[in-house]
Amino acid sequence: MLETTIAAIGPLDEAAMSTARQLQTRLTKPAGSLGLLEELSVRLAGLAGTCPPPLPSPAAVAIFAGDHGVHAQRVTPWPQEVTVQMVGNFLAGGAVVNAFARQAGATVTVVDVGVATPLPTSDDHPPTGDAPVAAPGGVRGHGRVDVPRLVDANVRRGTRDMTVTAALTRDEARSAVEVGIRIAGELIDGGAALLVTGDMGIANTTPAAALIAAFTGVDAAEATGRGTGVDDPTYQHKIEVVRAALLRHTPDPTDPLGVLAAVGGLEHAALTGLLLGAAARRVPVLLDGVIAVSAALAAAALAPDAVGAMIAGHRSAEPGATVALRQLGLTPLIDLGLRLGEGTGALLALPVVTGAVRVLHEVATFDSAGVAEK
Amino acid sequence: MLETTIAAIGPLDEAAMSTARQLQTRLTKPAGSLGLLEELSVRLAGLAGTCPPPLPSPAAVAIFAGDHGVHAQRVTPWPQEVTVQMVGNFLAGGAVVNAFARQAGATVTVVDVGVATPLPTSDDHPPTGDAPVAAPGGVRGHGRVDVPRLVDANVRRGTRDMTVTAALTRDEARSAVEVGIRIAGELIDGGAALLVTGDMGIANTTPAAALIAAFTGVDAAEATGRGTGVDDPTYQHKIEVVRAALLRHTPDPTDPLGVLAAVGGLEHAALTGLLLGAAARRVPVLLDGVIAVSAALAAAALAPDAVGAMIAGHRSAEPGATVALRQLGLTPLIDLGLRLGEGTGALLALPVVTGAVRVLHEVATFDSAGVAEK
Repeated sequence: MLETTIAAIGPLDEAAMSTARQLQTRLTKPAGSLGLLEELSVRLAGLAGTCPPPLPSPAAVAIFAGDHGVHAQRVTPWPQEVTVQMVGNFLAGGAVVNAFARQAGATVTVVDVGVATPLPTSDDHPPTGDAPVAAPGGVRGHGRVDVPRLVDANVRRGTRDMTVTAALTRDEARSAVEVGIRIAGELIDGGAALLVTGDMGIANTTPAAALIAAFTGVDAAEATGRGTGVDDPTYQHKIEVVRAALLRHTPDPTDPLGVLAAVGGLEHAALTGLLLGAAARRVPVLLDGVIAVSAALAAAALAPDAVGAMIAGHRSAEPGATVALRQLGLTPLIDLGLRLGEGTGALLALPVVTGAVRVLHEVATFDSAGVAEK
Repeated sequence: MLETTIAAIGPLDEAAMSTARQLQTRLTKPAGSLGLLEELSVRLAGLAGTCPPPLPSPAAVAIFAGDHGVHAQRVTPWPQEVTVQMVGNFLAGGAVVNAFARQAGATVTVVDVGVATPLPTSDDHPPTGDAPVAAPGGVRGHGRVDVPRLVDANVRRGTRDMTVTAALTRDEARSAVEVGIRIAGELIDGGAALLVTGDMGIANTTPAAALIAAFTGVDAAEATGRGTGVDDPTYQHKIEVVRAALLRHTPDPTDPLGVLAAVGGLEHAALTGLLLGAAARRVPVLLDGVIAVSAALAAAALAPDAVGAMIAGHRSAEPGATVALRQLGLTPLIDLGLRLGEGTGALLALPVVTGAVRVLHEVATFDSAGVAEK
């Protein structure tokens, strides 16, 4: 499935982009006066292969949840159980991502790709079976905006501690990537016109930093941030943990699956798959924060043209996010010091994307409106 | 009316802000992880005097349109008729501001406060009477999102050329400010929970630059930008025009009405009034670009506490906007190189404001969601 998906990813359509650029000059506004929104609209036309491209609505948030063996290294003061507790909060609609998704009219799908403990809703089911609220086999249809759904696609109950051994086997990494590809396909089949990356996993900024360092070559200190806001000693220790993992595995950036297996996370690998799956279907994906952009580096290493489907939703306060965005060549739409994850920063940017496309659909031309040009 | 309005403007409510700060620490997210959204939610609680503050919905865009005698100095290649043509475009729903307002669910009210030529829709009416689509006496009710409305509140058919004489008499400036106060009151009475500043006026970045230089003390070159994108010779000439106007009038920043009269515009003065009127009613206003922030400097000079009701929607590409935002102490929510005006940048930021408030209404606490803390 991974190879087929990669093979389906192609470049942006130059003819559609040229048509969009031309249309932008005829709309009733000074040329270039919509700044980055004009470039974004052109790129989305190139992705869709038509101008105007479809409005990115409805949108679907996919929150991949996983746990991390490296949590044992005390890289965060939060207990690991918070991952599964927050999954419960997502399903109850009580998290920030739910509030922002309701506002944006986006569905929320929570995917257990690597949570360490059985989910509270699946007590009566075998641990590898579908949780009660999950449709058999995954996501079916687009779903209601106000009812988050759970998909049980657990590959492994948390990664191994990457400072001791590889976080995942190569097969586990591939399986998690393929979970993401599958979810992308199911959400798009269900009607989603844009996907939003979401993530939950206590300690998951630590593997994200390791992935960013591995794919960009920056030092661990440049790629590592304070995550939920750790204190100075924990922050210094976290940098050393990332550095130790990189020294142990010396991951090869030309072998993206190998990097994901050595120092990644299950939600990071699944997000890599989501990005590849969306790009193969030529559907845009809004990237959230540092977890998403670390996964985007893996996706870009597997299929460079996949970047054409990516929109950087916001600039996370995590320094590694800026390092990754620079390498991806993406400019974030929002920059408000957010560092929550879940998909929250990307959802705030969704109206900007919709607005950029809406201009191509709805704004009058100088001719049609009878407005003089300079 | 101006003096009564200024007298009604007071400081933010410290108790409500303290309650909002406390609530932010109990919600299921790491403390501070929503960055600037948390500060914004606290300020809006202080403005409303209650926590959570009301959701800023529905919103109303007020687009003040005016013409400028300084157009004769060739500060822009666009013909003056484009002002009235774009008013027609707004009323037909064909401009970018209409597309963004529809998306945001905001009403659009176009106010002719100083257009040079009679509006095409008011051919059969006396020039000073209400245009056909305007409700008698101004705005009544909140209106339908898809039907923009015109209010005829023309104070003067364009300003005088500020390089030759004062742009407005003091009485005309006051009348335009009071138009803005009245529109704010009518929109709020009609149900608007947030106002969005909009403007239209060929050449209006020239008086905006002069206002910004007058209120902040920066040189004309720092306050002046390329507006719709003028070429180098026109840009240099525009700076000299702004400098000449400032030298002729030496406006006194402690006399804001005098500054507006000397080097302002009718839409700038009306926006000053809108900001004062909203602050007096403790309703937030999203500032659009350089026209709005130049008016905000006048409002702040008249009533320093009025800044508490202002939210900087975006950072316009015009350099004067950044100068003004610095003096106002406001951080813009969006920074995408926009320089269109009309209210477009502010409308893009509206979902960020709504999201910031929504968090206080809808997100579960650690206790209620059963999520452990660190």
